[in-house]
Amino acid sequence: MSAESKDRFAALPKPPYFVVAFSSHRTVGDCGYADMAQTMLDLAEQQPGYLGYESVRGADGFGITNSYWIDEASIISWKQVVDHLAAQGRGRRDWYERYEVRIALVQRAYGFVKD
Amino acid sequence: MSAESKDRFAALPKPPYFVVAFSSHRTVGDCGYADMAQTMLDLAEQQPGYLGYESVRGADGFGITNSYWIDEASIISWKQVVDHLAAQGRGRRDWYERYEVRIALVQRAYGFVKD
Repeated sequence: MSAESKDRFAALPKPPYFVVAFSSHRTVGDCGYADMAQTMLDLAEQQPGYLGYESVRGADGFGITNSYWIDEASIISWKQVVDHLAAQGRGRRDWYERYEVRIALVQRAYGFVKD
Repeated sequence: MSAESKDRFAALPKPPYFVVAFSSHRTVGDCGYADMAQTMLDLAEQQPGYLGYESVRGADGFGITNSYWIDEASIISWKQVVDHLAAQGRGRRDWYERYEVRIALVQRAYGFVKD
């Protein structure tokens, strides 16, 4: 398995914990998005209760980011950070054509790694 | 919003319902994967309790598929279909370097669509 692949997976802690499933379609053009996304990631890693994230975006602009959190309180704190960043920057409406957010309690989890 | 974007999002039913978050890193080469993936999608749509899916894979082979289900029973039935398909085909070990599966209960959900 390549180092890149390893880097793209989050850890698999024993449930229960939470996932925030964020699917989005980006607007055309950067509009400050890349800087904001990196800042968000750096801040997430410092956030209490943060367990990791997995993210991928296709060439057509559609992407999914699943982030993992110890509890709902840490998700709510994180949302305040994101909202603050969005208010400072150009705002979510400039970055996304559409998005959907689902907050879910992970009950079971398993994985496979090829030898 | 483009028609393609609209097609890539799942519906946003009122929670509770379940998400199966599947992150994976594909092996190099098709090995029958594309056919299997289309068959799986066609079968999922006929499956009781299926609510939709969202999926994206990057050029490096890492991808995320979140599928949505009414309850755990429908996820378990679906897993039997997937296992059967994998056994018929070349098997998951030929298609994936690594994967992680998380089964989670969606508690809150919201979305945004740009005007």
